[in-house]
Amino acid sequence: MAELVDAPDSKSGFRKEVGVRFPPPAPCLYSEDNMMNFCSSCGESVSRKTPDDDNRERWVCESCGMVHYQNPLVVVGCVPEKDGKILLCKRAIEPRYGYWTVPAGFMELGETTAQGGARETLEEACAEVEIGHLFALVDVVDAGQVHLFYTAKLLGGFDAGAESLEVAMFAEDEIPWDDIAFHSGRYALKKYFEDKGENNGAHIHELRRSKS
Amino acid sequence: MAELVDAPDSKSGFRKEVGVRFPPPAPCLYSEDNMMNFCSSCGESVSRKTPDDDNRERWVCESCGMVHYQNPLVVVGCVPEKDGKILLCKRAIEPRYGYWTVPAGFMELGETTAQGGARETLEEACAEVEIGHLFALVDVVDAGQVHLFYTAKLLGGFDAGAESLEVAMFAEDEIPWDDIAFHSGRYALKKYFEDKGENNGAHIHELRRSKS
Repeated sequence: MAELVDAPDSKSGFRKEVGVRFPPPAPCLYSEDNMMNFCSSCGESVSRKTPDDDNRERWVCESCGMVHYQNPLVVVGCVPEKDGKILLCKRAIEPRYGYWTVPAGFMELGETTAQGGARETLEEACAEVEIGHLFALVDVVDAGQVHLFYTAKLLGGFDAGAESLEVAMFAEDEIPWDDIAFHSGRYALKKYFEDKGENNGAHIHELRRSKS
Repeated sequence: MAELVDAPDSKSGFRKEVGVRFPPPAPCLYSEDNMMNFCSSCGESVSRKTPDDDNRERWVCESCGMVHYQNPLVVVGCVPEKDGKILLCKRAIEPRYGYWTVPAGFMELGETTAQGGARETLEEACAEVEIGHLFALVDVVDAGQVHLFYTAKLLGGFDAGAESLEVAMFAEDEIPWDDIAFHSGRYALKKYFEDKGENNGAHIHELRRSKS
């Protein structure tokens, strides 16, 4: 289940293998990916402490007192459709090199979730899209990520972007289910086809290592 | 519009007043809240650079080369309902001290978006809820936040949590619209009542300082 904690692109930040349970708020477990050694503001050492007004451990600077919160990241993607076929990208990067995925990646500051999905499609498939409705949200808990998937209309052509080996259109019965890169994307694709173009609300799904 | 960039609780991280535009990816503008001086891994200085495999500026360590990504944060909330009335909390903390809000706050590592909404309700209103469907997503672009709102059923009693002055139930015609703390929460409440209990999909809304 290694791909469970993998993100759709390489700009992954620091979210893996956390073990915070709910409820109650337990002391955060953290892995190498959540490690901090120094305060990014003053450069002095940080340590794990529960701030006075808080109920869980954070990285707190021992010198200036700054609290360095670590929170889940948003991944945004879309399913570009044209003439009954959808666009998939064959990954040219790890994780899941050589596997197929819908265009998706980490949301950036300064953009909306829909713009993020469109941007990722431009980057990975050189394709312009018109974003439709939000149809799936996947909580990838162990990775500390929330994956959002929009429907989309492919507006023109496409080509392999820098992070893709190949980009192609697939009818529903042509989807390479065994070679889909991520659990979240596989869930999104299944729901996408089940919806048959209708807006049935946002399908919510939880992925945890212990549950999958 | 100060409240536009405010988050529903005090654990706000470092997201304000960014000005990245889309498209194309422009060099990130950043404010004090996005400032980094030192690498949290090795403690040496960081500077703004575009990494080789990237298309926008990041904080990069001049010594160990670590890239410190900064991405939007997720705020999760819900609208707890019982007998046709909904629960609101009067804030006991800044920002928007004394204003009313639905229970909401920053999503934590280790939880799902729905669990985050339930946890915030427990913390702010001492109330247990059963989370329903996702009915609104608000992109609070200038704050670097995505606000998610679920419907919910209030399961029992309630009381003011540490971050609330008061918690109360309101019928639709009793909502204190002029005293709602955040634009995103006001949008969510309006859509909640428009939906009249039906799942009409996730209503998507964009808040930017220039557009509001």
